[in-house]
Amino acid sequence: MKRITARPLDADSFRPFGEVIESDNARSIRLINGGTTTRFHEVAPVEVGKGRAILSIFRGKPFAPPLAIRMMERHPLGSQAFVPLSPRPYLVVVAEDAGGRPGEPVAFLAEAGQGVSYPPGAWHHPLIALEAVSDFLVVDREGEGPNIEEYEFRDGFELVLA
Amino acid sequence: MKRITARPLDADSFRPFGEVIESDNARSIRLINGGTTTRFHEVAPVEVGKGRAILSIFRGKPFAPPLAIRMMERHPLGSQAFVPLSPRPYLVVVAEDAGGRPGEPVAFLAEAGQGVSYPPGAWHHPLIALEAVSDFLVVDREGEGPNIEEYEFRDGFELVLA
Repeated sequence: MKRITARPLDADSFRPFGEVIESDNARSIRLINGGTTTRFHEVAPVEVGKGRAILSIFRGKPFAPPLAIRMMERHPLGSQAFVPLSPRPYLVVVAEDAGGRPGEPVAFLAEAGQGVSYPPGAWHHPLIALEAVSDFLVVDREGEGPNIEEYEFRDGFELVLA
Repeated sequence: MKRITARPLDADSFRPFGEVIESDNARSIRLINGGTTTRFHEVAPVEVGKGRAILSIFRGKPFAPPLAIRMMERHPLGSQAFVPLSPRPYLVVVAEDAGGRPGEPVAFLAEAGQGVSYPPGAWHHPLIALEAVSDFLVVDREGEGPNIEEYEFRDGFELVLA
């Protein structure tokens, strides 16, 4: 299997695939609540078309790298955001679209506290928690219509940490 | 000032005011991602009417109880959810509507890890972080129209921990 290496997650590198949910990635910053709160405004949009957005919690079993990336998925009708609620890193594996299937996967190592949001149609691997069972807040779409596509790689990729 | 006491936050007690964002409060639970992830589905809805939902981060300065509750606010056009990203408790102060103004405030002490979602029009006090500067993921509404009402109490209330 071809090997891919996870790089540290940052908003600029990740932008072709979505948004990093962290205060540094806000569209604007302002003081509210009489100066007691700083609002880092819109670190990511939520896009659900004719559906509705819901908040859920995903609890992921941990994976131990190296691990095989054998498939990817995407949600054509809505965005999907993951925000870690446990103080642990996790892996984000994404790909640009290549004619209706994912191109070569690109892997990022997210630090505790960094979330990600995939726009509608963005190829990504399902959740890859690390170290221990980890909880994530998930913001995604509920509604009518087929909102998942999956693609299986013929050979897969071996994902290693840097 | 009349004194109010914060009680521990739990989903059943809080339901007249909104939803608690925690895995125990999910509408349904299912295994996904080949059994590696548990999805606690819809712990809270996101309601934004004709607006759009966005993800922001609020960074709150800490308050030291006892503290004075002098005003409350509400957002008639959209829900607003707060999920703590820092491992610290915080205070949630809400009120039922009493003819277009807030009734007597009710206070809850949220544990680290417990989020809350206010439905459109629910009276609540602005963010009250405790112990140290704390970050929260916020899911709320962006869009046209007046989406904030504020009410100042004549005498205010003194909020103490239990």
